[in-house]
Amino acid sequence: MPRVAERERTPGVQQALDQVKALLQKHRIVESMVHKQDMPRHELVESLVHKQNLAELQKKLDKLHPADVAYILEALPLEERLMVWDLVKAERDGEILLEVSDAVRETLIADMDSQELVAAAEQLDTDQIADLVQDLPQDVVAGVFQSLSVEEREQLRSAMSYPEDSVGALMDFDMVSVRDDVTLEVVLRYLRRMDELPDHTDQLFVVDRDETTKGVLPINRLIVTDPEVMVASVMNADFISFSPDDKAQKAAQAFERYDLVSAPVVDQRNRLAGRVTVDKVVDFIREESEAELLGKAGLREEEDIFASVWKSAKNRWLWLAVNLCTAFFASRVIGVFEGTIEKLVALATLMPIVAGIAGNSGNQTTTLIIRALALGQVTPENARRMILKELAISLLNGLVWGGVAGLFAWWLYHSVALGVVMMNAMLLNLLVGALVGILVPMAMQRLGRDPAIGSSVLLTFTTDSMGFFIFLGLATVFLL
Amino acid sequence: MPRVAERERTPGVQQALDQVKALLQKHRIVESMVHKQDMPRHELVESLVHKQNLAELQKKLDKLHPADVAYILEALPLEERLMVWDLVKAERDGEILLEVSDAVRETLIADMDSQELVAAAEQLDTDQIADLVQDLPQDVVAGVFQSLSVEEREQLRSAMSYPEDSVGALMDFDMVSVRDDVTLEVVLRYLRRMDELPDHTDQLFVVDRDETTKGVLPINRLIVTDPEVMVASVMNADFISFSPDDKAQKAAQAFERYDLVSAPVVDQRNRLAGRVTVDKVVDFIREESEAELLGKAGLREEEDIFASVWKSAKNRWLWLAVNLCTAFFASRVIGVFEGTIEKLVALATLMPIVAGIAGNSGNQTTTLIIRALALGQVTPENARRMILKELAISLLNGLVWGGVAGLFAWWLYHSVALGVVMMNAMLLNLLVGALVGILVPMAMQRLGRDPAIGSSVLLTFTTDSMGFFIFLGLATVFLL
Repeated sequence: MPRVAERERTPGVQQALDQVKALLQKHRIVESMVHKQDMPRHELVESLVHKQNLAELQKKLDKLHPADVAYILEALPLEERLMVWDLVKAERDGEILLEVSDAVRETLIADMDSQELVAAAEQLDTDQIADLVQDLPQDVVAGVFQSLSVEEREQLRSAMSYPEDSVGALMDFDMVSVRDDVTLEVVLRYLRRMDELPDHTDQLFVVDRDETTKGVLPINRLIVTDPEVMVASVMNADFISFSPDDKAQKAAQAFERYDLVSAPVVDQRNRLAGRVTVDKVVDFIREESEAELLGKAGLREEEDIFASVWKSAKNRWLWLAVNLCTAFFASRVIGVFEGTIEKLVALATLMPIVAGIAGNSGNQTTTLIIRALALGQVTPENARRMILKELAISLLNGLVWGGVAGLFAWWLYHSVALGVVMMNAMLLNLLVGALVGILVPMAMQRLGRDPAIGSSVLLTFTTDSMGFFIFLGLATVFLL
Repeated sequence: MPRVAERERTPGVQQALDQVKALLQKHRIVESMVHKQDMPRHELVESLVHKQNLAELQKKLDKLHPADVAYILEALPLEERLMVWDLVKAERDGEILLEVSDAVRETLIADMDSQELVAAAEQLDTDQIADLVQDLPQDVVAGVFQSLSVEEREQLRSAMSYPEDSVGALMDFDMVSVRDDVTLEVVLRYLRRMDELPDHTDQLFVVDRDETTKGVLPINRLIVTDPEVMVASVMNADFISFSPDDKAQKAAQAFERYDLVSAPVVDQRNRLAGRVTVDKVVDFIREESEAELLGKAGLREEEDIFASVWKSAKNRWLWLAVNLCTAFFASRVIGVFEGTIEKLVALATLMPIVAGIAGNSGNQTTTLIIRALALGQVTPENARRMILKELAISLLNGLVWGGVAGLFAWWLYHSVALGVVMMNAMLLNLLVGALVGILVPMAMQRLGRDPAIGSSVLLTFTTDSMGFFIFLGLATVFLL
């Protein structure tokens, strides 16, 4: 398995970032000299060093891939980020805005006026504009819309009409389609008239007279086949296609399983509506797994690492507030047994163990169940089997680790009874953890909620409260 | 964002699974009838119904994509899984073994004899054999090796020599290379002589007389360009390539950034050693994010959902044992203050709140830092800035949520002093959580460890122990 520690940027981009930082550093030195010597600002602007510096930086940026410029913008604090942003050639604004993270995009857009934004958006394809639209001010959107052709407006409307997690949101309109009743020779001549084929064109989409999608013609087959042959006789009539309303997740799984590079998107009448390409799918998979990791820690959105303290704090509050409420509740459960604790203070030292281990164990169960749910491995018939299995594992764990904890309690406080209570409380709470760990994600799935996000709070809530209740309850009954 | 709840298999494969299950169900009914009526077993084998049943199942399986058969095998309990596995045509064994998860592959391989395994491996390319080798018995590996040509043995040796997280482990040898001093016409004729091009051939690799890699020739450019032109004049001389020793993570990032479909792998002398394709990269990204999710819950490996209780339990033990040790330690910290708790039992009810919220808050910090580390956004110069920012957020959170918790304590126990102690303990422990949450992943990264795996244990350990210590310590000093 790759280890995160070994992740690194491609040497090129890391080096580019270092160079940009070095140039910015030089720039800062000049500025601070000016500041110290009280040189008037307009002289600074005139200064040769300063100009050279910025020119060199601009040259550097012009040579970089938009994704690399985006990376550099994300890695710079706000002030320097905006300085670099101003140096980026205006005609590249659009593609770079597409590449940066949502949080950083906000800071860049805030720095641009309406005219610049309209110009940036106009450089993009309609499917790309659709990705930006939600971040643009209303007047900019109107301006962009006016600059589009009728067909493009239609495409933009269509792309914007699909939810973010649908195939419609992933698709673009750069598909090349050919008729099924022509020879490959005709197709080749048609292609040669184009300057270049759109990226990720590994297959042409074959349509008939009525624009119905009939098949796909892999470019590689086009190349190795006799040009006299008809499209209809070499195309794949059995091909994978999606509807714009399909879940993006479904498309991602099909791309993974069947190793696709592109796939047609067709409407209800089987007419070509667009295409999905593997680069979009890769981005989707990455974003999805990141959203899951962030969501598990209760972070509502990705944070710009240079965002203000205030903004970052707000991103984290909902989660802390929810957890505080569950902690208050668990605290009141303990409160019920104050009398017991007063008499046997050892209970206070041992109770967090009971709660904590069941939480850890339940979290393992939840992680596996969420994975099984995502892979469609949980069916009504095997749900019962999985519950029984998890309970059996908890029983085993309860005997093993509950036994260890019981011995610990006995050894510390020289009370066999306390050890037995400890062991039984661990055992019971591990069973509670397993049951909650499996039932909560299943219930959330059935309710159409995301099991990955809320399950862990509910789990900790239960294993804490029940852990305290079971342990202190057993102690009250059997030890006092 | 896509929600896990909405994930689903492509309808095709889910439907296929249901059909397979229905056929297996029928099969079971026949078997149980036999059992009840004490029909001799050989009659069952002869029985028409039985035969029809299996024939239908086999026909069904033959029509499925290997990835779909793999999905079905993963979704079936062991007994039924092996029954289906026996029905799969022997010549497909190899590709299906490649598609199933590690845990399920083990169960399938255990069911095959050496001869079958050698036959299965022989159907595969050398890079694919290299992926299986670690799961195969020694004698099978020797048998496979003998069946290979000298060139293939060399490839297999080379593919096996790279660590799992290197580009060498991702690469295959299906590259098509052409010379730079020929015309496109020659290239097209050369390609037409092949039956088909390898999957994911979006570009040909251009080499000179000395086998040195000079550039890449995109297939799409080959198609739209005049065939009289020389390869050298249309190829991209500026292209992205990897060394087999590069980290796979680096290749994955380059594929994501630059939207690649394939890329050449070259040795130190710049000679073509293989290629990496986007389908391998997608699998790598998926596996990596799954390993991270499983690792965070302390699961050492993916579990076959039908694995035995004993096997599953062992997969989870290391984590539980480690957490039990940290819980014992935290318990002893509380033990030090038994005298204090005896006098003021309210402390026992409030102390889990102090520990828990700091753990949650620290976990948010850790998640963001691990992400920033992975993206290369943490540099020596901004590390200090990030630490200060996280401390500032914790200070803010400590004032807000510590204040709320303080009010809660005051309201419950009518003691202003207790409320003030509560608030200060929360504030201090949130600062501890932020500090540990940022420093532990950074230290692990520097030590070459994976910050995603061990950080959360260390974090919980600290926020629990320190939470109890700070809160009970402050209470001992100021309240008694």
